[in-house]
This record gives sequence, C-alpha cells and structure tokens, in this order.
Amino acid sequence: MKLATIRVGGGHAAVRVDTEAAVETGARDVRELLSDPDWRARAENASGAVHNLSTVDYAPVVPEPGKIFCVGLNYRNHILEMGRELPEYPTLFAKFADALIGARDDIRLPAVSEAIDWEAELAVIIGEPVRDADRARAATAIAGYSALNDVTARDYQYRTTEWLQGKTFEATTPFGPVLVTPDELPEDLELTCEVDGEPVQKAGTSDLVFDPPHLVSYLSRIITLRPGDVIATGTPGGVGHARKPPRYLTDGSVVTTRITGIGELVNRARR
Amino acid sequence: MKLATIRVGGGHAAVRVDTEAAVETGARDVRELLSDPDWRARAENASGAVHNLSTVDYAPVVPEPGKIFCVGLNYRNHILEMGRELPEYPTLFAKFADALIGARDDIRLPAVSEAIDWEAELAVIIGEPVRDADRARAATAIAGYSALNDVTARDYQYRTTEWLQGKTFEATTPFGPVLVTPDELPEDLELTCEVDGEPVQKAGTSDLVFDPPHLVSYLSRIITLRPGDVIATGTPGGVGHARKPPRYLTDGSVVTTRITGIGELVNRARR
Repeated sequence: MKLATIRVGGGHAAVRVDTEAAVETGARDVRELLSDPDWRARAENASGAVHNLSTVDYAPVVPEPGKIFCVGLNYRNHILEMGRELPEYPTLFAKFADALIGARDDIRLPAVSEAIDWEAELAVIIGEPVRDADRARAATAIAGYSALNDVTARDYQYRTTEWLQGKTFEATTPFGPVLVTPDELPEDLELTCEVDGEPVQKAGTSDLVFDPPHLVSYLSRIITLRPGDVIATGTPGGVGHARKPPRYLTDGSVVTTRITGIGELVNRARR
Repeated sequence: MKLATIRVGGGHAAVRVDTEAAVETGARDVRELLSDPDWRARAENASGAVHNLSTVDYAPVVPEPGKIFCVGLNYRNHILEMGRELPEYPTLFAKFADALIGARDDIRLPAVSEAIDWEAELAVIIGEPVRDADRARAATAIAGYSALNDVTARDYQYRTTEWLQGKTFEATTPFGPVLVTPDELPEDLELTCEVDGEPVQKAGTSDLVFDPPHLVSYLSRIITLRPGDVIATGTPGGVGHARKPPRYLTDGSVVTTRITGIGELVNRARR
C-alpha cells in the first residue's frame, strides 16, 4: 500500500495512492493517519474523495514529524572509498519540519549560503510507538519507506563541529512522494540522484552499514519513536562538495531523487 | 508576567503565575497560548480556574516545542579558561520534546549510559513567527526566558562527532518552572547549578558570547522560528565531565538549577 499527504483547499489530506487515483482517508495527514492504531485497515478501506493522481499536489509525505533523525556516513562503499573505517555507531543529527517540502516543490536556495548540495536518501517512517526494541520488534514498528533529499548548506554545516545549522534551512528538503509499506518493496532498493539530468549518485540500500531495523532499535533505546517520526538513513557517494572543483546547486538546477518502488522527487532550486 | 504549563486532570493547562496562585488562561499549554497573537492581553486578563501555587504540578513550560535548538560553547570565561578562542559562529544542535520534563519531575537515568552530566542553561522562548530578523526585530520576538538543564549522556555525546544522541534521552531535561517576560528581568541573570546541595556551576548570563537576540537573529536566517520554539543558550563551566575524576549523576542525585528572577528546577535522578 502507498500513502501520501496532498494539498487540498488550503489544507492537507492523507490519501491512499492507487494506480491512477488518490483516495482520501479522512485523516489530515500521514502522521495523523499513522497515529490511529488501525491505520492499515482505515487506509485499505478508505472511500473518501478521489483525486486524479496525475494532478495531485504532494505535500511532504509527513508534513510535521515530531522528530526527524538523520544519519551520516552510512554507505559502506563510500566510507571505504574515502579511506575511513566502518563506524561502530551511527552518526546522528536532526532536521526540523520547516525544512521539508513536497515532491514537486521548489528547493528554496538560502540567501546566506553559496554551497547548497544534494544528498539522496532512503527515509524510514515510524508506524507505532516503539521504545527499547530489539531488531525484530523494531522492524514491525516501521510503517514504510519514502525518499528524501537531505539538501545541505555545506558552508553552514562546517561552520562548527555540529552539522545541524547546515541541515535545516527552510524549505530545502524534498520528502515523498509516497510512503510505501514494507510488504511492497524488495530488500535492496536502488537509490539514484540526478542534477539537470546528469547521474550523480547511485547505490543499493543493501550497502547501508546501519539498516532501518538497526537504526530504529538503536534510537528506541534513547527515546520513544512515535507514529510519523522519520529517520533519513544517510547518503552514498557522489555529493557535489566532494567533487574537484565542488559543484553546488544554482538558481534553476533540477534535482531528481529516485528510489525503485517508491518513486521520484523532482525539485527545481530557486533563489 | 509569568506563565507556566501545569498538569490538570489528565491534561495540561497554560496558566498565568501570580504571587500565590496560578490562573488558567484557557489555552492547553504555553505553546498554544503564544500562538495567539493576543497572548499578552489574554494572559493578563485570564480569569479561569485558580490553583494554589504551592501545590501545582509543573509540566515542561512548553511541553511540545516545534523546535528545540541548543547552543554549545557559549560562556566566554569558560571558553577562555579552557584555552580556546572565542568562536565566530554559534555551535548549534537539537533536542526533541520527548526529552523534556517538568520542574519537579525525576530525571530518568538511561539504562544504557553511565555518564549522565548536568548543564544548567538559560532558555529563550519565542513569542511570534520570526524570519530574517535583525537584532532589534529578533529581540521583540522573544516571549520570555526560562531555565533548562541540558542533561547529557557524555558517552553517547562523544560516540560520534555529532552530539544529538547524547542530548535527547527521554525524560532527562528539566524545563521551567515558568516563562518570565523580558520586562520583569534584569539584563544580567545569575545562573547556578547544585548537585546534592553542592554548588557546581555559577555564571552571569552577560557572559554569553552569543546573547539571546543574536541567537534569534542568527537562527531566523536559517528557518522561521515560531511561537513556543526554544533556544537553550549553552552552559558555563563546572560540568561533571570536566572534573578529574569525572563526576556523573547517580540514582538519587538531586540537581537544582536556579536563575534569578525565574526560579528553580529541583529534579531527582532515578534509574
């Protein structure tokens, strides 16, 4: 099953996404839907207003997550090719909801940064409260997966040791278009990023050092994860900052983030 | 004027705190109250249920902020005594709402950490949406100040370069007891922390490298700050981790965080 949050008449609606239509579930957004313990049945049986899929306006798949955790340094090949050792623990930082945009929205290039870079990622969305969970329990708390581009202001990221300020610029982070439940996805997902049609990142999610159940279990020993919470699982090699010379997004750049089975984010950068 | 969020009958209520009584404002919590552009008049004129101040049960003053920004390395004397240079930019990291506790609640010592430390801090609470603000405009967006102890799992903080995982353990961060509006506070506030009655931290907030208006202005160029958003402004010297040998909180330790004009947080650590 696929779920999304779409914009309708000044507000949001959580929808089930079928082959050609989006059907309203009665919840305002995917977080509210997932907060209903019977969300699966509610979404499967939804029979609200129907929208033509080709014209829906996607909001971030979860517009206001209670928490957005992001992971750094999590693709094996990329870490090894950089000459680093595989990490013992996940590197974790945050992002706030005001940074999120929908699957077709413009990326707002900040006036104060000249170093905006792409980071295509697989995102995990939590479907039930989970605390102190082992790997098996953690896996069952995952509602589904989505695509996210952790667009980053490299200059702000490296102003201090803590990356947050480069990671949470307003309206910079495409997230969606849909949540896909785990039963509809293969084990290994191909993740790609293109800038102006040129392939820049490509990886399989089986290359993650810390996979989604591990991350959910690890975080659940720190804090309760709740329905709609998000974990962006990290990006593979191919970011613009690592190029010589570095390459950044400019006014008009189009970033396409694609994950097999989930779909694509197509976002134009605008200053 | 002083405001608080208290626990009443299974829920929360935002109250105006007078000398001996707390008066309900009709809002569920201080974030909801501050989201009303007329919050000052509404709180001043509040005439809801009255509670005896000596018996109120304080929730975190803002139980669910949309964002909690924390600042590291922000007290001048402490930076200089450590032999470091004053920073050019604030070091910023995050915390999530599930970490917050009320002014008299127990600090939950995590099962997985043996290195829980104190960090007494002045907290800024935002009173209106603010974006791209200069210093003067930023100052007017501050609803008031409160006390917060950024209790930290040092072992998790230093597992990687990014501090988040040591900063957001569930039910570890006392926040309150009240928000005090700027007109009722002197310029320089004395901030102290005691552990089991022994003074461990003491500083004046005029020693901050980046003061509240500067922090609000800086952050507002990154993202819109909204009513109820929180900035924890950093801690002075005297933390347990810097002692030789290090000193951490143990089952039964009582942490008292006090700011002149705001009040005190008294929290017992419990495993």
